[in-house]
Amino acid sequence: MAFHLLQDARPAAQSLAGALTRSLERVGRCTRCRMLTEAPLCSICANPQRDAGLICLVESPADVVAIEQSGGYRGHYFVLMGHLSPLDGIGPEQLGSQEFTVLLAAGGIREVILATNPTVEGEATAHLFSQLVRQHHIAASRIAHGVPMGGELEYVDGGTLAHALAGRQSLT
Amino acid sequence: MAFHLLQDARPAAQSLAGALTRSLERVGRCTRCRMLTEAPLCSICANPQRDAGLICLVESPADVVAIEQSGGYRGHYFVLMGHLSPLDGIGPEQLGSQEFTVLLAAGGIREVILATNPTVEGEATAHLFSQLVRQHHIAASRIAHGVPMGGELEYVDGGTLAHALAGRQSLT
Repeated sequence: MAFHLLQDARPAAQSLAGALTRSLERVGRCTRCRMLTEAPLCSICANPQRDAGLICLVESPADVVAIEQSGGYRGHYFVLMGHLSPLDGIGPEQLGSQEFTVLLAAGGIREVILATNPTVEGEATAHLFSQLVRQHHIAASRIAHGVPMGGELEYVDGGTLAHALAGRQSLT
Repeated sequence: MAFHLLQDARPAAQSLAGALTRSLERVGRCTRCRMLTEAPLCSICANPQRDAGLICLVESPADVVAIEQSGGYRGHYFVLMGHLSPLDGIGPEQLGSQEFTVLLAAGGIREVILATNPTVEGEATAHLFSQLVRQHHIAASRIAHGVPMGGELEYVDGGTLAHALAGRQSLT
């Protein structure tokens, strides 16, 4: 890409540099959910049709885009911008635990869905924030772990299979 | 593999041919769960330490091996040897619905876990067999659908994400 821009597409490179500079100047974080946005409130937090009583806690803005594209969620988000990683100096405060506590204390929230990644760091982060949520007497839930849609059991790893069996849901 | 066997490893080819012939002669199906076995009952059905009140319904013997390797399951199995596929002439009877009905009617079964693949055919098969289970007033459950362990939300497909959110589990 670097060779293409410098050799064949110098005007495009100029345009890209300008766009990047403008983005850096204009795009900040939503004051409520920490999502990337050009306005003080992001389009999701500012939308009165979304359910403000439901908060989905995710690690990154890319996760917000992925969940929005799945089309099944109508609540708000809270973006941690990372996960717990003590060796890199990332503790609860770097993940916005103070902003999150303010949001919980403001009231009106029924449930917090912990949608951090199903990795070791993600589970630790979910555990930490679930304790914050419960201190405010709000319901906390974790996204389901199990076999992905369209997959074949034969090729799914043992840990996922064990979780899928343990988390089986009764058919009524 | 064919060139290797015919060119460099003719004794191995002979040995492989013999092993295949003997396997075809000796390996049949378990009379209880339809798993591949050399005895009338497979080693799982014959093991008194396994929980005979719990049946896990799977599509293939490979699924049994995968679930056994996950180490989290101590019940019995029932192997369908396929999934519903009307265009290929595979209906309930080819999947052993009669043997399964006999097994359910024999009593002693508390719960049937429907662990068919999370594909369209697998879901249809699970639905059909769940009706059979409920006719015998036995609990039916479906393995959890959701994000696989160690994955990243960003790279999970929309259908799986929607299922993971809908199937979220309360943290208490």
